[in-house]
This record gives sequence, structure tokens and C-alpha cells, in this order.
Amino acid sequence: MHFTSEQRLDDGVLEREFTLGEIPGTLWTPGSAQAPQAPQAPLVLMAHNNGLPKADPRLRARARYTASRGYAVATIDAAGCGDRPRSAADEQARADLRRAMQAGEPVDEIFESLIAPLVENAVPEWQTTLDALLELPEIGGGPVGYSGGWAALGIRLAVVEPRIAAAGFFAGGFVPRAQREEARQVTIPLLFLLQWDDTGNPRQRALDLFDAFGSKEKTLHANPGGHTGTPWFELEDGCRFLDRHLK
Amino acid sequence: MHFTSEQRLDDGVLEREFTLGEIPGTLWTPGSAQAPQAPQAPLVLMAHNNGLPKADPRLRARARYTASRGYAVATIDAAGCGDRPRSAADEQARADLRRAMQAGEPVDEIFESLIAPLVENAVPEWQTTLDALLELPEIGGGPVGYSGGWAALGIRLAVVEPRIAAAGFFAGGFVPRAQREEARQVTIPLLFLLQWDDTGNPRQRALDLFDAFGSKEKTLHANPGGHTGTPWFELEDGCRFLDRHLK
Repeated sequence: MHFTSEQRLDDGVLEREFTLGEIPGTLWTPGSAQAPQAPQAPLVLMAHNNGLPKADPRLRARARYTASRGYAVATIDAAGCGDRPRSAADEQARADLRRAMQAGEPVDEIFESLIAPLVENAVPEWQTTLDALLELPEIGGGPVGYSGGWAALGIRLAVVEPRIAAAGFFAGGFVPRAQREEARQVTIPLLFLLQWDDTGNPRQRALDLFDAFGSKEKTLHANPGGHTGTPWFELEDGCRFLDRHLK
Repeated sequence: MHFTSEQRLDDGVLEREFTLGEIPGTLWTPGSAQAPQAPQAPLVLMAHNNGLPKADPRLRARARYTASRGYAVATIDAAGCGDRPRSAADEQARADLRRAMQAGEPVDEIFESLIAPLVENAVPEWQTTLDALLELPEIGGGPVGYSGGWAALGIRLAVVEPRIAAAGFFAGGFVPRAQREEARQVTIPLLFLLQWDDTGNPRQRALDLFDAFGSKEKTLHANPGGHTGTPWFELEDGCRFLDRHLK
């Protein structure tokens, strides 16, 4: 893992870009001028819905806030995400998706063909990143959290990665068939965030997914409004959820 | 309003029984040995589902915790509730309800005949109590909250009582037709708490009620488990919701 740049933000959070082989990432860690590095902050992996770039302002804002609450927060552009090269099949699926959306045709099967491989390819890169991050002295070796718009990736990681101890998922994104089925195998504590009027993401499908999770502790938070209308207090609630399980 | 007894609890909360005409009530206010009375605590009205007695241990526990977080919390046994005399019609409805439940027959119409008048009769007594409480020097004249198992009473109060500025409702109780209809007229911020597997209270009906509320800010919190299984952290979340709107 090579750090390629660093910047101290005005809330004391240190933002560092890194590369790990071909994987570009960003790490935010809490600190201040007095104590530049909080010792042994628990790690939170944060991924953006369906592979949007790690530089997206909403992701950065969530990551900075979470770091300011005492967490090391990391994100990457996994294979096919952000500025990473896309496969020909991926480009084709994205073109099909645009055309179907403009024509008002069903998009479920196109999303399936686009998102399912994206999840499959992203998981090993997130695991490689997790291995490297846990070797950093400023990150505690303790339980790891996942807090992500990208629920499908989170479900897959929660199933295959025993180091992940708690997860917050955003319901507003396409979840491939495989992850809808393996939701029952997720048993870690969950916070599931739903925008009640997210027209692109059927409400009943999100409620069915919440119902399917195998976790004994799972909480649904639903708020009115569309895809990007999540109220600010849910960011606080998300950190308190992590506090209960990682601190 | 006459205080008939008082007790300082081990968390510093002062618990006082009172009567107001025929209405018996309990008031919990925050304090400590050093500062027996926190000045001007915001008021929270707390009612138990479908008229259960104000002395119920779960209600008392919620009230004490909320008071320890800086609120004056009041509850009453309204007409027909707790140990108050019941009408002949009320006794008949309760007998019908027991019989129907034992026989596995539908109970909706019996609940309707039992709960609808209970709400109608309770509202003026809660308003009389509110008038008297707001004259106490230890209660701030500011906005008032409602936090109650009894959602139907809360809906009616939120519609007729402009002094109520925010409300937390528990979904696990019968809501009469009139209150289901006037839910659209509720516009104050709401926190709506649902037990996902509450077999006596159909989930879809609760989700429909959440959908119906006219409030721009309304949040649904749903957790697995039955009627009495609400996790402890929802009590904290409920206080933080009140903090946002009353403090």
C-alpha cells in the first residue's frame, strides 16, 4: 500500500489517497493538530452504490463525518468502478441500460447483467484492501464495519468475510439475484436505510430484503423522499449504530 | 393539580403522583441531590397502549429514562383507563373481545367499538392535564412532545392540539378508523416504531399508517421480534428524536 497524497481537512481528519497494486483508494483517519493520529481507530469500509467513483462528493462527506466520529474509513474504486477500465460487456450493458431507460422499458435484467459481475469482481479487491489496511499501525485490529450505499457488495462481503462485524446498508440500489438469495446468510447486526419514495427502487423489494436478512439484530430506518433525500440525522444514527458494535 | 406523593428515585428523577379532579396522574422530573429540580424541562406526554394502567412497569421504565434525559414526563389514567370506572358498554366490549380471541374469530370490529370511544373520552382529559402541567414552574412553556405506545391517542392529540410539536408512536396497537383517516392531517415530525413480527398487529397496516401520515419529517424504525421485544437502543433513539425538536 502506497500513500500518494495527504491532506489535513478542517475537521482534523487526515485524507490520504493510496494505491494497492492496480487499486486506487482513499483513507480518512481522525485526528487534530494536537493529536494528529487517534490511536487504533476501528475500521469502516465504505462503498458507493453500484460502483460510483470514490471521489463522489456524497461519499466523501459521509466518510469525513464518520472519520470525525473516531473511525478509520476506507474506500476504493474496485475493478470496473469509478475511473477503472470497463470490460466490453460492461460498456454494452451500460449502453443497453441507457437505451432501455429512455424507452421506458424494463431494466431489471440489464441491471442484473451489469451489477452481478461488478459485485463478483469487487469482492476480492475489497478483501485485499482489508488485509493491507489492518496492517497499518493507526488501524485497530478489532472488528470491522461496513457502511455503504452499495448494499449488494455489503451483503456479499458480510457472507464471505468474517472480519466484518456490523453493517449499514442503503436500500436504494439494485441488488442482484445472488445477493437477494444470500441475504438469509447475513447474520451480523444490520442497519438498513430506506428512502420511502425512491422511485427507481421499488419499496416492496427493499422491505422484502429487510425481511430476508438472517440477522437477529437488524433495524430498518425509513424516511420520506427520493433517492438522495436521506436526512442528515441518519448519518449520526449510522455512527451510533457502529459505536454499539465496533467500540 | 394536587400532588399526593413524591419519591426521589436512584437516578435522581423525582416521581410524583397527582390528581386533577377525577384524573390520577404521575409526573417524573429530572434532578439530583445537588440540583433537585432541573429548570424548565420540556414536557413529554406519555400514554400507554389502549389504556393500560399508568403504573405498568414498562411505561414507568420509559418515563424514568426519558426524565433522566432532561424531560418532564407525565402520564394519566384517562377516563375508562387503568383503574378508572368502566362503562357498561366498555365492559361488554372487553367480554366480547376475550370471547372472540379465544374462539379465534375476527376482532377488528370489537376493537373498533372498544378503542374508538376510549380515544374520544381520553383526549379532553389529556388536554386538561396539559393545561395544568404547563402552569407548573418546573415545566417550560415551550413545545410539548408526545411519546406513547398509544398511537391512536397520539394521532388525535396531534390533530387537535397545536402545542404538541413532535411525537413518537408505537405501531403495535389498534388504531380506530377515525384515526387512520386523520393520520393525513398529522404534520408534526414523527418517529414511528414498529415491531416487525408483532403477530397481533398486522405489519402491512402499520406500513400503510406510516405512509398515510402527512408529516414532512417522519421516520420509521422497524426491528425484528414480537410486541414487547423493542430493543433498548430505541429508547435512546426516541430521546434523541425529542432532543432534535424540543430542546
